[in-house]
Amino acid sequence: MFSRDNLSKNHRQIATIAALTALGTAKQQLKFHLNAGLNTGLTEDEIKETMLLMSIYAGFPSAINGTNALKEVLSERE
Amino acid sequence: MFSRDNLSKNHRQIATIAALTALGTAKQQLKFHLNAGLNTGLTEDEIKETMLLMSIYAGFPSAINGTNALKEVLSERE
Amino acid sequence: MFSRDNLSKNHRQIATIAALTALGTAKQQLKFHLNAGLNTGLTEDEIKETMLLMSIYAGFPSAINGTNALKEVLSERE
Amino acid sequence: MFSRDNLSKNHRQIATIAALTALGTAKQQLKFHLNAGLNTGLTEDEIKETMLLMSIYAGFPSAINGTNALKEVLSERE
Amino acid sequence: MFSRDNLSKNHRQIATIAALTALGTAKQQLKFHLNAGLNTGLTEDEIKETMLLMSIYAGFPSAINGTNALKEVLSERE
Amino acid sequence: MFSRDNLSKNHRQIATIAALTALGTAKQQLKFHLNAGLNTGLTEDEIKETMLLMSIYAGFPSAINGTNALKEVLSERE
Repeated sequence: MFSRDNLSKNHRQIATIAALTALGTAKQQLKFHLNAGLNTGLTEDEIKETMLLMSIYAGFPSAINGTNALKEVLSERE
Repeated sequence: MFSRDNLSKNHRQIATIAALTALGTAKQQLKFHLNAGLNTGLTEDEIKETMLLMSIYAGFPSAINGTNALKEVLSERE
Repeated sequence: MFSRDNLSKNHRQIATIAALTALGTAKQQLKFHLNAGLNTGLTEDEIKETMLLMSIYAGFPSAINGTNALKEVLSERE
Repeated sequence: MFSRDNLSKNHRQIATIAALTALGTAKQQLKFHLNAGLNTGLTEDEIKETMLLMSIYAGFPSAINGTNALKEVLSERE
Repeated sequence: MFSRDNLSKNHRQIATIAALTALGTAKQQLKFHLNAGLNTGLTEDEIKETMLLMSIYAGFPSAINGTNALKEVLSERE
Repeated sequence: MFSRDNLSKNHRQIATIAALTALGTAKQQLKFHLNAGLNTGLTEDEIKETMLLMSIYAGFPSAINGTNALKEVLSERE
């Protein structure tokens, strides 16, 4: 029906990070995809921006939890 | 802290569509953003791909409901 | 352990309306409690304020859906 | 459209505690608002009653998790 | 790792109906599986019992919505 | 209306485990019911199969979290 290559790697990571942040029930998988996103070229600011966006669609607690997961990932990568 | 322009318009629409599809509780807002995404240059295939991705992270019912919302938007745009 | 009368009728309706708006999966029950709340003395503004508050904790789509449910209830009561 | 003062401080805390207990994905923010609610005059019994109410609308696990968060807050305040 | 046949057809239908009732975001898929469950030998009472159980774990609104979906399925099958 | 004995003990445990895995917000209660299910005769494979099924209806993260809860229960039982 449609090719799996239609969505760029970065788009896929953004979509996944957005969904896992909005759902808020899978911190470990979110951290995995935050790492994967940073590895494939997403910048820290793009991820923060995605989480800020989630505060609109899923509420501030989701965005804060997502941002905390990002902080943990960033400090683990150092 | 960080500029709101860090995330491209398309990235933002993908993130929003992903989150609303995963949450599955706001069909009208999803349809609004599907229209907005198509208007700002997302292709139908990129949106379908995003919804297929959501079947992994939020289950098939979310993806099917999202795909149905897309079908409605596409037929309303014709 | 504790008396069921500890929470005033209005507090209970506010708590119920808040939760059903945040969860976003039970429009009929939300409308039932909006009617009950209006009957027991909640004002329209108190309910709107509760829904605005939910946009912070559960995202704008929840708040918008809740506000639409309130509009339907108000027009049905006229 | 409507004044932000329409809802009393206690009503706001009850609504917030109800929503965060029902959603069940933001324990830290729930604990923050439990503390805030106790500081602004909510009694322990009013909060317990709110959580009992959530067992009806969001299931027992949400109510039990909320009650555990309250226990932690109460022991930290001592 | 483990065989897909480990869970009997009825167990699978019960698990699926329980989950879709608890999640409350996919009425069409729930109705599909209610039909499938009735076709493969689940009784109306077993399904009602499953939904009553969901009121404990996901709240009364989920159970009521699930029961309404069942009523629709039963009347469509007549 | 209908007898509480309509659903066998195993069916009830499967339904509860399915729902708590799908909701993903109550790990302690899930672990309690995993233990209860194993005590009343569910096999490890039946539970794993139920969780695999949840990946379809609630997404892979729910299934992975559920499987991790099962691993913890199994190692605590040894």
